[in-house]
Amino acid sequence: MTYTEGMLKEDALSGKTILITGGGTGLGRAMGKYFLELGAQLIITSRKMEVLEKTAHELMEETGGKVLPLACDVRNIEEVEGMFAKAIAEFGAVHAVLNNAAGNFISPTERLSANAFQTIIDIVLVGTSNITLTAGKHWIEQKQAGVFLNIVTTYAWTGSAYVVPSATAKAGVLALTRSLAVEWAKYGIRSNAIAPGPFPTEGAWSRLLPGDLAKKFDPARQVPLRRVGQHQELANLAAYLMSDYSSYVNGEVITIDGGEWLQGAGEFNHLEQIPQEIWDQMYAYRKKKE
Amino acid sequence: MTYTEGMLKEDALSGKTILITGGGTGLGRAMGKYFLELGAQLIITSRKMEVLEKTAHELMEETGGKVLPLACDVRNIEEVEGMFAKAIAEFGAVHAVLNNAAGNFISPTERLSANAFQTIIDIVLVGTSNITLTAGKHWIEQKQAGVFLNIVTTYAWTGSAYVVPSATAKAGVLALTRSLAVEWAKYGIRSNAIAPGPFPTEGAWSRLLPGDLAKKFDPARQVPLRRVGQHQELANLAAYLMSDYSSYVNGEVITIDGGEWLQGAGEFNHLEQIPQEIWDQMYAYRKKKE
Amino acid sequence: MTYTEGMLKEDALSGKTILITGGGTGLGRAMGKYFLELGAQLIITSRKMEVLEKTAHELMEETGGKVLPLACDVRNIEEVEGMFAKAIAEFGAVHAVLNNAAGNFISPTERLSANAFQTIIDIVLVGTSNITLTAGKHWIEQKQAGVFLNIVTTYAWTGSAYVVPSATAKAGVLALTRSLAVEWAKYGIRSNAIAPGPFPTEGAWSRLLPGDLAKKFDPARQVPLRRVGQHQELANLAAYLMSDYSSYVNGEVITIDGGEWLQGAGEFNHLEQIPQEIWDQMYAYRKKKE
Amino acid sequence: MTYTEGMLKEDALSGKTILITGGGTGLGRAMGKYFLELGAQLIITSRKMEVLEKTAHELMEETGGKVLPLACDVRNIEEVEGMFAKAIAEFGAVHAVLNNAAGNFISPTERLSANAFQTIIDIVLVGTSNITLTAGKHWIEQKQAGVFLNIVTTYAWTGSAYVVPSATAKAGVLALTRSLAVEWAKYGIRSNAIAPGPFPTEGAWSRLLPGDLAKKFDPARQVPLRRVGQHQELANLAAYLMSDYSSYVNGEVITIDGGEWLQGAGEFNHLEQIPQEIWDQMYAYRKKKE
Repeated sequence: MTYTEGMLKEDALSGKTILITGGGTGLGRAMGKYFLELGAQLIITSRKMEVLEKTAHELMEETGGKVLPLACDVRNIEEVEGMFAKAIAEFGAVHAVLNNAAGNFISPTERLSANAFQTIIDIVLVGTSNITLTAGKHWIEQKQAGVFLNIVTTYAWTGSAYVVPSATAKAGVLALTRSLAVEWAKYGIRSNAIAPGPFPTEGAWSRLLPGDLAKKFDPARQVPLRRVGQHQELANLAAYLMSDYSSYVNGEVITIDGGEWLQGAGEFNHLEQIPQEIWDQMYAYRKKKE
Repeated sequence: MTYTEGMLKEDALSGKTILITGGGTGLGRAMGKYFLELGAQLIITSRKMEVLEKTAHELMEETGGKVLPLACDVRNIEEVEGMFAKAIAEFGAVHAVLNNAAGNFISPTERLSANAFQTIIDIVLVGTSNITLTAGKHWIEQKQAGVFLNIVTTYAWTGSAYVVPSATAKAGVLALTRSLAVEWAKYGIRSNAIAPGPFPTEGAWSRLLPGDLAKKFDPARQVPLRRVGQHQELANLAAYLMSDYSSYVNGEVITIDGGEWLQGAGEFNHLEQIPQEIWDQMYAYRKKKE
Repeated sequence: MTYTEGMLKEDALSGKTILITGGGTGLGRAMGKYFLELGAQLIITSRKMEVLEKTAHELMEETGGKVLPLACDVRNIEEVEGMFAKAIAEFGAVHAVLNNAAGNFISPTERLSANAFQTIIDIVLVGTSNITLTAGKHWIEQKQAGVFLNIVTTYAWTGSAYVVPSATAKAGVLALTRSLAVEWAKYGIRSNAIAPGPFPTEGAWSRLLPGDLAKKFDPARQVPLRRVGQHQELANLAAYLMSDYSSYVNGEVITIDGGEWLQGAGEFNHLEQIPQEIWDQMYAYRKKKE
Repeated sequence: MTYTEGMLKEDALSGKTILITGGGTGLGRAMGKYFLELGAQLIITSRKMEVLEKTAHELMEETGGKVLPLACDVRNIEEVEGMFAKAIAEFGAVHAVLNNAAGNFISPTERLSANAFQTIIDIVLVGTSNITLTAGKHWIEQKQAGVFLNIVTTYAWTGSAYVVPSATAKAGVLALTRSLAVEWAKYGIRSNAIAPGPFPTEGAWSRLLPGDLAKKFDPARQVPLRRVGQHQELANLAAYLMSDYSSYVNGEVITIDGGEWLQGAGEFNHLEQIPQEIWDQMYAYRKKKE
């Protein structure tokens, strides 16, 4: 299957140093690996140094590229500035940032404390703005171009029940993306976002929905294409948006979800359940009436 | 129930002459009736003079207002211009237009002929543009202000399977609304739209989905508020947008669907099916792990 | 001018107790005043008790209605819960909430500290979620219906340069609105938003843009209708969305901006600058070529 | 500049036969050329056989690939079906369709005849639906997968003055894309769209805006990145969406406009005109007041 292979020309990201938040595991790791294969160097950051170091080690083994693990709580601006300074000290420059760190609870909203709500806003929205302010100020001061790529969700614009703190925070990240795409374009800084549908990562889905629930709410069923996404498919899109090939894409959020959000949204999409025989009968019935 | 009553001050539309396409039946008739109650005069038009005359008669009886029925196929620009000229001859001026005429097939798209597809585009999109060009040119020439209100659907922006010609045509009407809201504002012409969710009219739903299907696909189930809309609710919103009270609303499409399209769109909205006991267990489980 | 008058039937909000954050001044005060005229009782809250008390006094004088001023910093959940408890103690019930409190800086984003950025997120997004969680949990516990109306901005979905913290926070509020419109509908709680364009309040605009700038960037110029909004126009729309007349409007954001955001967005809208004579020449030129 | 080079791995479209409407000139030709370089075979169609033949000849010379020119008026379903049958006869199968044919007038809407309006709807919307129905029915019958890629505009969702027939028709094409992305996914048919900003083609811009106007309304000025797009940038994106690498992108419209539409849309984006010295003064002024 072609879509499980890398799509860009070799060296498409050669010479680029890319910072990935939440880069130690899951989708952040998968995108990072492909960036390395395309010639990039990475800084990966999250709160857990142990995880980061293990991932950095593995990625370097697998790709031969260079990966710097730096522990940092994105909610804390001092930690973010310190982490960024270390990255600059090591690589001389950071060319692009993938804001991928996130947090989420699946819960009826009335069961959430104000504190739980704020925690998600702090990780997702304040964390992203901390990283973005730090990198952006540096690039503007250094008169250096840069690229932001922010991972959001399809419910950033529709909202969604049961993940409300995440919905509000991701909506904020989307607005940040679009605002700075305009404001900072004059400095050579582009900003884009990806809204992924279901791309399962080991343990994530079952952690959100334990036991039988994960099976009952199989996300593939909500997708017109009847399958979940492969990590390489997301990595291909992310690499494109990180690369100079997408230089004229700015302020855009690209959805890669197999059509999932649209399937729910369209008013008559549920007529899918009508079998062909019934359509046949309906046609026959209409004809008779004419 | 308050929402089955008219909401605007008496005489809110006094002195206004309003043209309604598809005004002989269903929602067009319901909105027209309320406009009459608020002091407006009406022109109602559709292809079937008999239906129009009956409705005009009934509405005048019920409200004491004046209603002029004029037969016209909106797809035909000469008929539209002739109809509009008669309306001007009778009333001296038309102050507002409600583009409400529509057509729809519920069908798998691959079963539609190109001809069937074009028929819906002609009625919905070309018909609306014919009416809009005719009224707009007249208002601009006469240096007279005017109001357009166009009925679209929530799938004008999301699209929808099984009603594809209607989706494309209504999307066009929405773009027309927004385009002219900007372009013709300098002439004192406002343009807005309403996207209604399920407001059943006698026979319409069962005509679209005959037999048991109408019951099986009960539209109330797709609505967070678990009910369909009442005609007066739509009429209240339409009267507001027709009136001078909404003078600063321009280029807007207002959805009145109880939240229907959002319920489908949000990625985790289907977790609604999880009963409270399971949420209890999930909370207990998480706590134990901490 | 009709649009400077109230539009709803007398007593449209009779028996309703409405909480307004940021209710002491500006648009919050203007909307509150009209709610009182329609028979509602108010709680107004903000950080400045002096301002609140003065406003409460004036509004009661002007309308004969009842207004309870309660000081509260919406960023602090304990203060919010305390304020809400006092409101319940006084009125027995709160039926609706207008989340109107906001903060904003106009500034190049690279000049903002992380702290300034977070302050706006805390006031606008965390503040709104604190109020919403508190009222929502109460309503759900009491098995009581309720209405949320949240004031956002048109740049909640497009983003905007120079007001980036506000853009991110308001986008979050919009997502909150849409998410809970679906999730809490089963409890009889509706959620909607208004996105107002330019509705100048004394001092606000000149505070944001001091000196000549306020004049140079006259907001009326960006509006197709070439004027700013009148407070009563906003109040009419807000009263509709607060009232039972809008019972089937849920999850919706209604823009009232004269078409401002669309004027900027449409790719060829700037051809407005072409005078009629040039269009004449272009037509003549095309004809000659045919 | 990397972005003027092809980005995908060689042979990314090897074995694919792609039909391009409006493929004889401009952007259609540019995208087609890159598809050929990636190993695809082409059918190009438009009304002018002479132009098609010249282009086919040139493209084959330049790339060594195979190009079949077929004259066809997309407004006429019989011509479309005949053209498609010939393509199948020649290649055995068509794997993907690029709906690129379009028409446009730049004109005040009140100067357009109903006939001129309908002409654009017929070319753009009916033409696209004719091609789409023909290819889709064939694929469904043959139980063969397929890809649709439709070229729309950024004003498909915002509308735009002065190009209103095009705005309505392109909005329809976007709704078609999203509707069929859901409905036909079960047959293995994906549907996506691209909304390009300014990608000048020889003569097109000056034909739309003759004389000095083209210069006065230099489109680069509306773009945050301050430049127009290069054809290869569009071709790279189109090739990605045509290829199997984008297999999980479905129902999406990707904007590639340098941020143009957002620049106009965001309420405070025009503060760009404030020079740095004034911002300095404003900061000093605020500080003094604190």
